[in-house]
Amino acid sequence: MKTEHRVVIPALAGLVIGLLLTDASGAWSQLSQAITVTRSGSQPSRQGAAENFRGSVRIDPLFNATPPSRTSGGRVTFEPGARTAWHTHPLGQTLIVTVGSGWVQQWGGPTQEIREGDVVWIPPGQKHWHGATATTSMTHVAIQEFLDGKDVDWMEQVSDEQYRR
Amino acid sequence: MKTEHRVVIPALAGLVIGLLLTDASGAWSQLSQAITVTRSGSQPSRQGAAENFRGSVRIDPLFNATPPSRTSGGRVTFEPGARTAWHTHPLGQTLIVTVGSGWVQQWGGPTQEIREGDVVWIPPGQKHWHGATATTSMTHVAIQEFLDGKDVDWMEQVSDEQYRR
Repeated sequence: MKTEHRVVIPALAGLVIGLLLTDASGAWSQLSQAITVTRSGSQPSRQGAAENFRGSVRIDPLFNATPPSRTSGGRVTFEPGARTAWHTHPLGQTLIVTVGSGWVQQWGGPTQEIREGDVVWIPPGQKHWHGATATTSMTHVAIQEFLDGKDVDWMEQVSDEQYRR
Repeated sequence: MKTEHRVVIPALAGLVIGLLLTDASGAWSQLSQAITVTRSGSQPSRQGAAENFRGSVRIDPLFNATPPSRTSGGRVTFEPGARTAWHTHPLGQTLIVTVGSGWVQQWGGPTQEIREGDVVWIPPGQKHWHGATATTSMTHVAIQEFLDGKDVDWMEQVSDEQYRR
């Protein structure tokens, strides 16, 4: 019996700890996480991919979604004439224009000018594009949420005809 | 039979439309929503409530959560010495420091200095405060998500002793 106890008691303790780490993982893992500070200048800039953008677009990452949070954010700078392709977001997107002025258009709607300090809400599933104006650059912070592993669905490019209209 | 048809067919049509508006409401209501632009200068600034902040704190609203999105954001400016009370966020919070430098501290941890361009992640349920340093102001964009109708749980004030440590 003594030999059995030596095996069974640690096994039960292991099971209890295992359950605490899994079933109660929400509370446990949250308490074990510390505040993180990502320093300015520590995240490399990258160019917007040619299949999803036209013109010169720089993306400065800000933050990724850390589950159970599902929100990510980045800073995007469009040189004059640059824009996204047409696209949608499964849970919508918010743009905070921080520098310059640009254009935003939803499918079938008018092109609207947006300027520093404006905040744009793009509803879920709404086909749209955004970018600089033909003559001025624009920087915005873009904030969106993931649904089933995706925060964007890319479509066709915005033609020069669509862009200049 | 003719009289019955006159009643039954519109009733069936109504049922079909009703189902389209309810069961398929996701797709339908999304398509019916337009992009909205909230212009710079159109949302009044307000002071941080005395029960949740100490010192002079200005809140400039940016965007509210529009379901099914659950993310809200605002710009907060702390004069030197000003800070939040201790608090937690059910799904965490991201701070993007946009002007100046400040302090952030989690319960039991060291006070960390944060500066323009830094990005701070506060995990869900992590008791913390943030604010200006004793001598410099700080502005940050704060982004958080709602869970069960709440995006913050306020606690006790940060004493001068805790703040200056």
